[in-house]
Amino acid sequence: MTAMRRQEFLSDNLEEFEEICQRAHLGYLGLIDSRDYPRIVPLNFIQLDHNIYFHGAQEGEKFELMSANPKASFSVDLPFAFIPSYWQSKQSAEPTSYFFKSLHIRGKGSLVTDTSKKAEVLQAMMKKYQPEGGYAKIETSNPIYRKPLEKVGVFEVFNEEFTMKLKFGQNISDRLIEPIIAGLQERGLPMDLETIANIRKYRQ
Amino acid sequence: MTAMRRQEFLSDNLEEFEEICQRAHLGYLGLIDSRDYPRIVPLNFIQLDHNIYFHGAQEGEKFELMSANPKASFSVDLPFAFIPSYWQSKQSAEPTSYFFKSLHIRGKGSLVTDTSKKAEVLQAMMKKYQPEGGYAKIETSNPIYRKPLEKVGVFEVFNEEFTMKLKFGQNISDRLIEPIIAGLQERGLPMDLETIANIRKYRQ
Repeated sequence: MTAMRRQEFLSDNLEEFEEICQRAHLGYLGLIDSRDYPRIVPLNFIQLDHNIYFHGAQEGEKFELMSANPKASFSVDLPFAFIPSYWQSKQSAEPTSYFFKSLHIRGKGSLVTDTSKKAEVLQAMMKKYQPEGGYAKIETSNPIYRKPLEKVGVFEVFNEEFTMKLKFGQNISDRLIEPIIAGLQERGLPMDLETIANIRKYRQ
Repeated sequence: MTAMRRQEFLSDNLEEFEEICQRAHLGYLGLIDSRDYPRIVPLNFIQLDHNIYFHGAQEGEKFELMSANPKASFSVDLPFAFIPSYWQSKQSAEPTSYFFKSLHIRGKGSLVTDTSKKAEVLQAMMKKYQPEGGYAKIETSNPIYRKPLEKVGVFEVFNEEFTMKLKFGQNISDRLIEPIIAGLQERGLPMDLETIANIRKYRQ
């Protein structure tokens, strides 16, 4: 039953994958620490060919944990809209919900050693986080980047498998989705109109 | 050296702990999955006495993984400001940075079975996510909540230890912090003025 409800939210649409990664400023790397606890690290990141890349110290904690155990995961979310209970019930708090797009990747973490690949990743990060420009392009041929490119650690989480959920009320009846759409329209937060478009798109 | 730089960002201020948990809509639960990969789950959550609580299906994946291995972590972030490179250099992309508050908890995950505690957690979640009210208070004595309180799974991550980082340019020289403050003032995004206040608070 739970599994059936979850199925309604699953997607393997790669355009959504790319959009989630483009719009989310933070992603969450999961590793296993030396005491076998999960270790979560929030990071700025990009995807290339649906693998995940980020940077950090070449000999820091991420490198040590990945070297000891390459099993990694990476989680990225776009929260769209909190749905207050009173759009569906004047009494019960139970119907509160959250509509979102969410991506979870399982894979192997490793250090990128090829300098051209490092430059490509860092340049792609600049395009994502500083799209207005204002810097010399990161490439191995530019001498101002020679030392930084040697020093910085660039990491990959190779995507072995992913699960993507797009939750926009697919499990809510037609009768109850209407007041939610009306509520979103009235509240009118920046993401609320986008949420309505996604409800219309994903509730068939 | 890396460790020394990191020290500058560390904090154990419990008011900051509470503020981060109050303002962040999403937290990230880390568990170990059946194939010994880290599993990250984005969640709405609250803290009570600096332990973390959230809800979910009583017999779903979270319950199964926690039962098999209670080692858990929980990560919460407040991004404050992206710092573009051109506030510090007209040439190099290297000085880009992100100022943030960040919390990482290690602990043990478990299912909360006491119904009064479940009601307390869910009511605290409503206060966080729907502060405007519009619902009957969640308490065991209200018959509309009897079945939902039985059915819902409420989970705890008991806080064994935490690491909190407040990154506001503590590692940046006085000469270079001034153009950053000027840039934040000019850009004037909602969080930029708060970022300036935090720079002034945490740089010595």
